[in-house]
Amino acid sequence: MAPLIVDIHTHVYPPSYMQMLRARKTVPYVHDPSDSGTPRLIILSSDDDPSIRIDQRGRPVDSSYSDIEVKLAFMRRHGINSSVISLANPWLDFLAPDEAQSWAERINDDLEATCARVNHAADPENTRALHEKETLFAFGALPLSAPSADVVVREIERLKTLPHLRGVIMGTTGLGKGLDDSGLDPVWKALQETDSVLFLHPHYGLPDEAFGGSEAMNRYGHVLPLALGFPLETTIAVTRMLLAGVFDRFPGLKILLAHSGGTLPFLAGRIESCILHERKFVANGGGVPGPQRNAVVYGTAGLKAAVAAAGGADRLLFGTDHPFFPPLSKDDEEWPSVTTNYKAIHAAFDGESDTVAGVLGGNAARILNLK
Amino acid sequence: MAPLIVDIHTHVYPPSYMQMLRARKTVPYVHDPSDSGTPRLIILSSDDDPSIRIDQRGRPVDSSYSDIEVKLAFMRRHGINSSVISLANPWLDFLAPDEAQSWAERINDDLEATCARVNHAADPENTRALHEKETLFAFGALPLSAPSADVVVREIERLKTLPHLRGVIMGTTGLGKGLDDSGLDPVWKALQETDSVLFLHPHYGLPDEAFGGSEAMNRYGHVLPLALGFPLETTIAVTRMLLAGVFDRFPGLKILLAHSGGTLPFLAGRIESCILHERKFVANGGGVPGPQRNAVVYGTAGLKAAVAAAGGADRLLFGTDHPFFPPLSKDDEEWPSVTTNYKAIHAAFDGESDTVAGVLGGNAARILNLK
Repeated sequence: MAPLIVDIHTHVYPPSYMQMLRARKTVPYVHDPSDSGTPRLIILSSDDDPSIRIDQRGRPVDSSYSDIEVKLAFMRRHGINSSVISLANPWLDFLAPDEAQSWAERINDDLEATCARVNHAADPENTRALHEKETLFAFGALPLSAPSADVVVREIERLKTLPHLRGVIMGTTGLGKGLDDSGLDPVWKALQETDSVLFLHPHYGLPDEAFGGSEAMNRYGHVLPLALGFPLETTIAVTRMLLAGVFDRFPGLKILLAHSGGTLPFLAGRIESCILHERKFVANGGGVPGPQRNAVVYGTAGLKAAVAAAGGADRLLFGTDHPFFPPLSKDDEEWPSVTTNYKAIHAAFDGESDTVAGVLGGNAARILNLK
Repeated sequence: MAPLIVDIHTHVYPPSYMQMLRARKTVPYVHDPSDSGTPRLIILSSDDDPSIRIDQRGRPVDSSYSDIEVKLAFMRRHGINSSVISLANPWLDFLAPDEAQSWAERINDDLEATCARVNHAADPENTRALHEKETLFAFGALPLSAPSADVVVREIERLKTLPHLRGVIMGTTGLGKGLDDSGLDPVWKALQETDSVLFLHPHYGLPDEAFGGSEAMNRYGHVLPLALGFPLETTIAVTRMLLAGVFDRFPGLKILLAHSGGTLPFLAGRIESCILHERKFVANGGGVPGPQRNAVVYGTAGLKAAVAAAGGADRLLFGTDHPFFPPLSKDDEEWPSVTTNYKAIHAAFDGESDTVAGVLGGNAARILNLK
């Protein structure tokens, strides 16, 4: 029997979300050309360059972004049994305070309805095992720009009443001041108490100056922000949570880190050493205990490091980042971004079939209670 | 026989350099208190905070920074046979253009004289093997702020005439515009043609905004810039070199990356994927070949990843970063920052005594031609 494969990093822009973006004229927005050309999605302010024609800004949006049938075809092509879908960045972070709650409820209800419909179609009698059908689960979006954290807490509690929701996805700005903001404590508390997984995902990257300013950004396109900015953003955000003692106050918080935890697994030793040597912390006894980490698989050489830092391969989960990083050639049936990932997992745990099965799907099914 | 141990990451501020810093009033500078208190070294602009009393800014400077006898005692205590000393950051980057050449010559001549004196004292007849004595070699400093790259090239050529110099140390700003600046091509060419090793070392970190601005910086002291800013700076700098094709134009360039290459080993797969998907490069055939990498050892979980990315454990070199990260307690005879590193190397290559011997010293002796 082939092992269960669960994709915990796979994005959707539900039709309702696309409609909202179409009505906007500032980032993030969707530009619909007046002729029959391809719509463009502009989500990064660096892409919203007035010197570029609007029908060439950002990236083209095809049906893979919001048509769930395209997602299901992608799953079948790659042998993925179950996908835990999530709204893609920038989620709802940009909404006006009075819009946040209603949009979060609408998007999350849409996600629940999609999962219910697909799962029912795949298995109307609900008699088949998880690896015998294509099923969907979801991470919900949070109304982080709402006037108070109470609104966020109530949505976390409401998500527990939706049968296919398994946690939340969140960017690194939190309520606007980073994830070390003590104003987030009620949110961490609600996530811990409801046993909801927090999928932490980058979006904001690093300031252009970190990459050499606009000249370097223009020269190299999206490579620096995507390849380096995203994982470094995750690394910095989680280190700030660690330094602020979030993992001490909420030891039961379950966090899933995108992209193998940014660069945390690699830098864990150095971070620990610098904390031990920082006089501000030495005065308080030194040291800050580490978080429980779950890491999304991405890359090759870093897999073993991710395992060591996460505290075991049973905390490593497979993810594709679909619909991003599609094949470069239209002739490719399989997505190299996915097959490379499969190969890296098999190579890293060569001969350890239980470990491979865990990373590919068993761990996700256990941690997220998928059935 | 105990294996040869070579420390390729160990810094000095020669007395002449300290004297120059004492004469300055802007970063970098040394403040000598009027009473008999401890001098302070202020090298980061974030440490030059006018709201802090000047005798508490920066860090105290003790004799370990410039007294070579202290370095030799440190080597004996940790069984280090040979140290390849280098000027610490910010090197000579801040000098006025007309001062750069003369200071580079003076500092490099000082380094050569120190190595010659120590090595002669340890082995006057020059009959003993490298592991039977304490010896010093050095990486030179470059006059990067000189009016033209020719001055830098001439100093690289002159360094080859100094018997104990084995290459150069350089920060990430190059001639002021980053390491992807085509104005550096004559420098890369000179390093390649003279077969000099380039030790690439961070200093400038990332903008404060990357870490959440001044509030986060004040809250966590030096942890974020040291633990994350330094390795991320190296990662970004080398990725920019890669994208600019430096390693294509100068395939013989030998680079030693501080701190296990920043986070490059961990991110190598992701960088490659993002380059392949970037339309700017896809149009040109896609892909950029990788550099030859040598990595300085730092940390624990990342060692195996560093080996995989560097292309073999024979490119991994041991380093201490002395005199930084001293023991927290005065009672410690051995420096935990060093012993942790030893333990990580032994753990990563458990039972592979040849590999351990190579990382600890054999690789450095071979690559740097130490004898």
